[in-house]
Amino acid sequence: MKILVTGAAGYIGSHALVALHQAGYSVVALDSLINSSQKALDRVGMLTGAPVPFVHADVRNQAALRAIFAEHSIDAVMHFAGLKAVGESAEQPLSYYQANVAGALNLLEVMQEVGVHRLVFSSSATVYGNPAVVPIPESASADQPANPYGRCKRMIEQICQDLAAAEPEWAIGLLRYFNPVGAHPSGMLGEDPRGVPNNLVPYISQVAVGRRPALQIFGDDYPTPDGTGVRDYIHVMDLVRGHIAALKYLTTHTGCPIWNLGTGRGYSVREVVATYEQVSEQTIPVNLCPRRAGDIATCYADASKAATELGWQAEHDLPTMLGDAWHWQQQNPHGYAG
Amino acid sequence: MKILVTGAAGYIGSHALVALHQAGYSVVALDSLINSSQKALDRVGMLTGAPVPFVHADVRNQAALRAIFAEHSIDAVMHFAGLKAVGESAEQPLSYYQANVAGALNLLEVMQEVGVHRLVFSSSATVYGNPAVVPIPESASADQPANPYGRCKRMIEQICQDLAAAEPEWAIGLLRYFNPVGAHPSGMLGEDPRGVPNNLVPYISQVAVGRRPALQIFGDDYPTPDGTGVRDYIHVMDLVRGHIAALKYLTTHTGCPIWNLGTGRGYSVREVVATYEQVSEQTIPVNLCPRRAGDIATCYADASKAATELGWQAEHDLPTMLGDAWHWQQQNPHGYAG
Repeated sequence: MKILVTGAAGYIGSHALVALHQAGYSVVALDSLINSSQKALDRVGMLTGAPVPFVHADVRNQAALRAIFAEHSIDAVMHFAGLKAVGESAEQPLSYYQANVAGALNLLEVMQEVGVHRLVFSSSATVYGNPAVVPIPESASADQPANPYGRCKRMIEQICQDLAAAEPEWAIGLLRYFNPVGAHPSGMLGEDPRGVPNNLVPYISQVAVGRRPALQIFGDDYPTPDGTGVRDYIHVMDLVRGHIAALKYLTTHTGCPIWNLGTGRGYSVREVVATYEQVSEQTIPVNLCPRRAGDIATCYADASKAATELGWQAEHDLPTMLGDAWHWQQQNPHGYAG
Repeated sequence: MKILVTGAAGYIGSHALVALHQAGYSVVALDSLINSSQKALDRVGMLTGAPVPFVHADVRNQAALRAIFAEHSIDAVMHFAGLKAVGESAEQPLSYYQANVAGALNLLEVMQEVGVHRLVFSSSATVYGNPAVVPIPESASADQPANPYGRCKRMIEQICQDLAAAEPEWAIGLLRYFNPVGAHPSGMLGEDPRGVPNNLVPYISQVAVGRRPALQIFGDDYPTPDGTGVRDYIHVMDLVRGHIAALKYLTTHTGCPIWNLGTGRGYSVREVVATYEQVSEQTIPVNLCPRRAGDIATCYADASKAATELGWQAEHDLPTMLGDAWHWQQQNPHGYAG
């Protein structure tokens, strides 16, 4: 089977390419390189032993998409392409709706034209907004994401659900990621944010490697055991293995199922910092700051649906996640640019 | 002031052109004519005494939009363009999301580029889904529209709200229409659905004029006084007057306010039929049918916010609405094609 991977040079996309290769799939990689590096694809080629077939184009370019489907016999699509910075989404909402929602619409329209009806979509636990209960099951309300980034994800989910309801040949898996961290164990692939990292672990990694002086902790007065926010961190290698499991499921099922991809347990910011210090043998200075608007106290997955239906569960623990993140950062202190 | 009117040849758009002219505005009319007739614009020209400046293009055509803004000094946009059949939206959701959501995104992006930040958008009471209480205030939940048409409207509202929150120069009015009916009192403009009418009054009109044998009533076992569905019908001339009021408000206010446009009272299907029979002096045969999936019992507006903030309220009563609908249908038994 041949899989079109959009956003293939990004953090999750590049790891997915490796997982797809290991599971015996062929791939075609698409990326605009707006927010990612072609070096990630070069590294994937080194890891898999062959260059990655790559198309440098934006998912909003329908002509480019049509050309890919005309040239390759694509069986399914993994759609990772999109803008992903929560804070930026509130500042530049139109850019986010255009890139993410209009981008997904363009892809779905071309897939409909060419008769490819199997899709794995990168959604996010952000759609749950401030959850009423934790752990969060897939049945929890996703009506009030807290920011435009989350609303983009939810809109695309709704479009997929309406499409699958109208046309029963579609098989679309909506994967709600919790907090992907870590890196390929080789240290050759990892998360390489542009500018100031928006997420905790890349920020800590840049402190550990000496690029930033200290970590800011936004609030230690949340109703959590140590007062800092609790999140469900998942190793990117577990995450992409979940995509393979979803892809297999979708070869024998239609519809538009949703699966949480998380470990089912949460760690606080202070626990992450302490564990990172242990695995890296570095000291991470921290500065306490006020809460950030829109942040919530606690968020972790009920991951039982993916376990039951996909036979998938996360395997890597927090020290492994953070050890692999540190390994990547040590080997690539300035990411792919370094 | 010069107003760009998208969907200008449609039912509401064409009446808005007349209202804008009467209120002293210049206009540029845009329409794809996918689902409307240029004759509507010819009729507007007869009513206003001058041809309507018209651009035949789709709102998804950004080059055409840019050309309009380059040629004309546009002060504000009234965005009516979009697909509007609820049932069809469930069968062809991608077409609806592309035409409506991607169309609105394209328009907003071009407006942002050229620095035009004043917009009146045609939303719909459909966003309320099955309302928890009636009359429905603007503060009621709009999280669960019942169909893709309603979800399109809600997504566009959310995009506008996020945009206005990010960029304080925007002034966007979201007008949630209840059930527009009636026609210009001259009988020269009116609702001209293609194919089988989706809405009650155009269907009755086609029965009254002899184009269809009988009206189907979908359910008479709803929890309403006579068992048939209750809706808030509003005269299209009142509706477009509400747009003028919103436009004036937006010349002195920014942000993204929402206003219900309805009369604040509901009429049942049987009341509408009986009133239509009186004003037309025709007999309307009816067939009782089972309920339609997704239909709700009762829906009418709390219209007090528009009254307070815009100084606007509906003036025409049901006999006037239906008399004007009948007048239009009598003079144009086959609509603009006849």
